[in-house]
Amino acid sequence: MAKMKIAVLISGRGSNLQSLIDACADDGFPAEIAVVIANRPDAKGLQRADEAGIDAKIIDHTAFPTRETFEDMLHATLVTAKVQLVCLAGFMRLLNAGFVNRWRDRMINIHPSLLPAFRGLHTQERAIESGVRYTGCTIHFVRQEMDDGPIILQAVCPIRPDDTADELTARVLDLEHRIYPEAVRLIARGKVRVHGNRALIKDCEWQQNCLINPMIGG
Amino acid sequence: MAKMKIAVLISGRGSNLQSLIDACADDGFPAEIAVVIANRPDAKGLQRADEAGIDAKIIDHTAFPTRETFEDMLHATLVTAKVQLVCLAGFMRLLNAGFVNRWRDRMINIHPSLLPAFRGLHTQERAIESGVRYTGCTIHFVRQEMDDGPIILQAVCPIRPDDTADELTARVLDLEHRIYPEAVRLIARGKVRVHGNRALIKDCEWQQNCLINPMIGG
Repeated sequence: MAKMKIAVLISGRGSNLQSLIDACADDGFPAEIAVVIANRPDAKGLQRADEAGIDAKIIDHTAFPTRETFEDMLHATLVTAKVQLVCLAGFMRLLNAGFVNRWRDRMINIHPSLLPAFRGLHTQERAIESGVRYTGCTIHFVRQEMDDGPIILQAVCPIRPDDTADELTARVLDLEHRIYPEAVRLIARGKVRVHGNRALIKDCEWQQNCLINPMIGG
Repeated sequence: MAKMKIAVLISGRGSNLQSLIDACADDGFPAEIAVVIANRPDAKGLQRADEAGIDAKIIDHTAFPTRETFEDMLHATLVTAKVQLVCLAGFMRLLNAGFVNRWRDRMINIHPSLLPAFRGLHTQERAIESGVRYTGCTIHFVRQEMDDGPIILQAVCPIRPDDTADELTARVLDLEHRIYPEAVRLIARGKVRVHGNRALIKDCEWQQNCLINPMIGG
């Protein structure tokens, strides 16, 4: 069976990109990375793509006169690479409605909190400051509102009393690296269906196991 | 050592009251229920207090000309019973700032969500509709805003793909019955300190075990 072609969009070091590269290295994984795109020439994650022999492109948003022309170039690059699913992985540009709607239900994002809690930046500082005892991460389809859209997967970890933001970031990142490939796998296998504001997963057994056991991080 | 005297305030069937009654039946538990107060004469939980031989009072809010006079009666009843900690357990009356401030850091509430998510009513319906994969419950000190205030304990459970609101309510309630006595125990033992918007727990080892293992419900 043909593998689903995905794009991974990054702005920084691309640690979630690495987890997807590693997952795709398995012959049985139902997706392959067709292209990696960075909006910053200095994105460290570009090196990970190079090392894995994956086509990597820089589309520097500062080189475009408007957000729309940047997004047109992004769109053309994705279409040219025959991309079927766009994976945002630390991609730090807000996307306009036009682009978001063109990739509706075909673009996913990861956010380091249990959405709808703690949208936006400085997530772990805010989680610690708020006094919540658990946090986690969320994979969701992208909608026009930032860090909003049907939730595909979440994973949970505790916040310890003496956690620093760096420690908590590392703990959540470990979960991110586990759920991003799982979300791609489910989508590539046709298990995910969007219904209203919810993403429903067909394979309930999988989800149940995932939710209760391996995805609760220490 | 003298036990901490607590009051449990209810409006309905009082299942969390029952978990506190059961905990207090243990000689080693550091708190005792001095009085149960219901604001509704038909609150089914009153029978639980009777059966346990605990003083139970009805303070019917509809019998008072103003919210303030109702709360004055509530306050007088608590003081008379030498109450040191007020435990709201399904108490369905909003309390004014005057009363809340008199009992600041000495009044706790339980809410069936992972606050700050899903404050207010119809919690489980909204959690299911939002598509989140986990929910839980929260014990917090009471502040003037509804379902707000320093978080003492939280517990997590999954939301299953085919959950009804009733099924989810039951799963969360099971967690509630486990964390409410734990929160009272920690406070009675002097382990909880409020610092700004956060409640800090001294006994980190306890918290760590509690957070990671027994408080994640199937």
